Amino acid sequence: MKTMEGMVIPEFDDVIAAHERIRPYVHRTPVLTSSYLNALTGAELFFKCENFQKAGAFKVRGACNAVFGLSDAEAAKGVATHSSGNHALSLSYAAGRRGIPCHVVMPRTAPQAKKDAVRGYGGQITECEPSTTSREAVFAEVQARTGAEFVHPYNDPRVIAGQGTCSRELMEQVEGLEAVVAPIGGGGMISGTCLTLSNIAPGVRIYAAEPKNADDAARSFRAGHIIADDAPETVADGLKVPLKDLTWHFVKNHVTDVLTAEEDEIVEAMKTTWKRMKIVIEPSCAVPLATILKNPEVFRGKRVGVIITGGNVDLDRLPWMKG
Amino acid sequence: MKTMEGMVIPEFDDVIAAHERIRPYVHRTPVLTSSYLNALTGAELFFKCENFQKAGAFKVRGACNAVFGLSDAEAAKGVATHSSGNHALSLSYAAGRRGIPCHVVMPRTAPQAKKDAVRGYGGQITECEPSTTSREAVFAEVQARTGAEFVHPYNDPRVIAGQGTCSRELMEQVEGLEAVVAPIGGGGMISGTCLTLSNIAPGVRIYAAEPKNADDAARSFRAGHIIADDAPETVADGLKVPLKDLTWHFVKNHVTDVLTAEEDEIVEAMKTTWKRMKIVIEPSCAVPLATILKNPEVFRGKRVGVIITGGNVDLDRLPWMKG
Repeated sequence: MKTMEGMVIPEFDDVIAAHERIRPYVHRTPVLTSSYLNALTGAELFFKCENFQKAGAFKVRGACNAVFGLSDAEAAKGVATHSSGNHALSLSYAAGRRGIPCHVVMPRTAPQAKKDAVRGYGGQITECEPSTTSREAVFAEVQARTGAEFVHPYNDPRVIAGQGTCSRELMEQVEGLEAVVAPIGGGGMISGTCLTLSNIAPGVRIYAAEPKNADDAARSFRAGHIIADDAPETVADGLKVPLKDLTWHFVKNHVTDVLTAEEDEIVEAMKTTWKRMKIVIEPSCAVPLATILKNPEVFRGKRVGVIITGGNVDLDRLPWMKG
Repeated sequence: MKTMEGMVIPEFDDVIAAHERIRPYVHRTPVLTSSYLNALTGAELFFKCENFQKAGAFKVRGACNAVFGLSDAEAAKGVATHSSGNHALSLSYAAGRRGIPCHVVMPRTAPQAKKDAVRGYGGQITECEPSTTSREAVFAEVQARTGAEFVHPYNDPRVIAGQGTCSRELMEQVEGLEAVVAPIGGGGMISGTCLTLSNIAPGVRIYAAEPKNADDAARSFRAGHIIADDAPETVADGLKVPLKDLTWHFVKNHVTDVLTAEEDEIVEAMKTTWKRMKIVIEPSCAVPLATILKNPEVFRGKRVGVIITGGNVDLDRLPWMKG
């Protein structure tokens, strides 16, 4: 870690340390390919399948790094967070493995499947309204009451260092990658990807993929400063949250471009992935494929890593079934 | 191959030859595990994921073995079959790879997704009524017209030898298996499993899993002779067809037991697999897990291979969405 402009910024040594720390608690997830999707896109796509990860999403990497890096005295009071879902699952899982409490503030509108899963891992939920402002206010009350250690879903150097282990594995698993595409919400996965690739593979281009309906990262990237929206509406419910100072630091310094996709393009890419690759992925994970299909000239002929970030879907409410 | 009681019966040498022959055209599919499902069943389950196979199902193994074993003169007239779906896809895929025609007789009620996929691989469909008798009558017309080589979906020694490559891989991928469970419809996968395991791992118990609504194999097994039903109704649409002489030969000689599950148990097992393992599987593939959950005393504490036979599902018509 280094301190710069008032922020504690993780370094690549922290990624290596995180990888050792979390290894007993997370999967080294497989990389899958699809000859159908290669033909469709004209690129060679390598899907890093974090939907097969413990707790069903990459976020368990950062959560485990934070939880298992605490001293025993810190850990005794438990951990707390606010989350649109997967970080809540992941922190609950990590806390459960360490045997400490986990307090979670979640929007009341979060999918029932995610609430059930948090409780299944032993997390204790306090509900808030589905807006960033409400979420932060309710969380402050919970933290004051419990004294638990705050683990932010993404704007936390321990979390970013943990997420950086994903692209480190991807680079070990696939030779000669020329680009990596990952979804961007708050920017935790993208920041970890930037941290790792800028150190071990600085020539690899990094694309952030975002729903057009929640394109605050794309607008921030063009404007040169953080633009935050309150409660955007998108099927990619994991990507509604805004950038914060630490993730913005990585995005502005290392991301090649932020690409966006429309809602119907995201749903179509999600359904195509289910149909052809036979894997269950969240709408958020379909945003990279949607942007690749929308910008074929950027990716054609290239070896492209795609981070499939998670697979926690409410199977009773699939987006192509609505309306 | 050996001839016995008027049948040409494949031997283990044919499995080895099939494995070499089909290797360029099929995947060596991965074996996945789930700590959740292990805890739920009390067994150690190893899922052989043929849903990730080319054309989305194990049937491509037998189809490729038949197609690539033909002489050039035989192949020139093409191949033909009747199938409830996945064999049709698979034979179309295999024929396409060899560059020969594939004629397919399919029930008009087969899922649209399967018809589209057959045509996508270049197969030419002739529709029949959804009964075994209609299927066989229409097929006779097609074969007389084209002179194509008949490749039966399961009652064919070339097909059974091809399917036997699946459990051969499974035994290489997982040490110390004590039982293998696979769905049974016509019995092609089970026969291939029997052929392989009786030769290389005769101590491994073989369980056939069948929908209670289409339990002709279970009743045949108890009665000691083939009992065939015409057009049974089950959500596991790949398992409606009856045993034939060649598959019955393997079932009666090598299967430990035929276990059955109710429709709601199959759908629940399918949904649980999607939710927890994040893989798209057909209803037919959920029958083994449903029977394991229903007969925990048979499997508890054992290392059990489970054949996930395919992943070709109509995503617009999921069984838990009906009604």
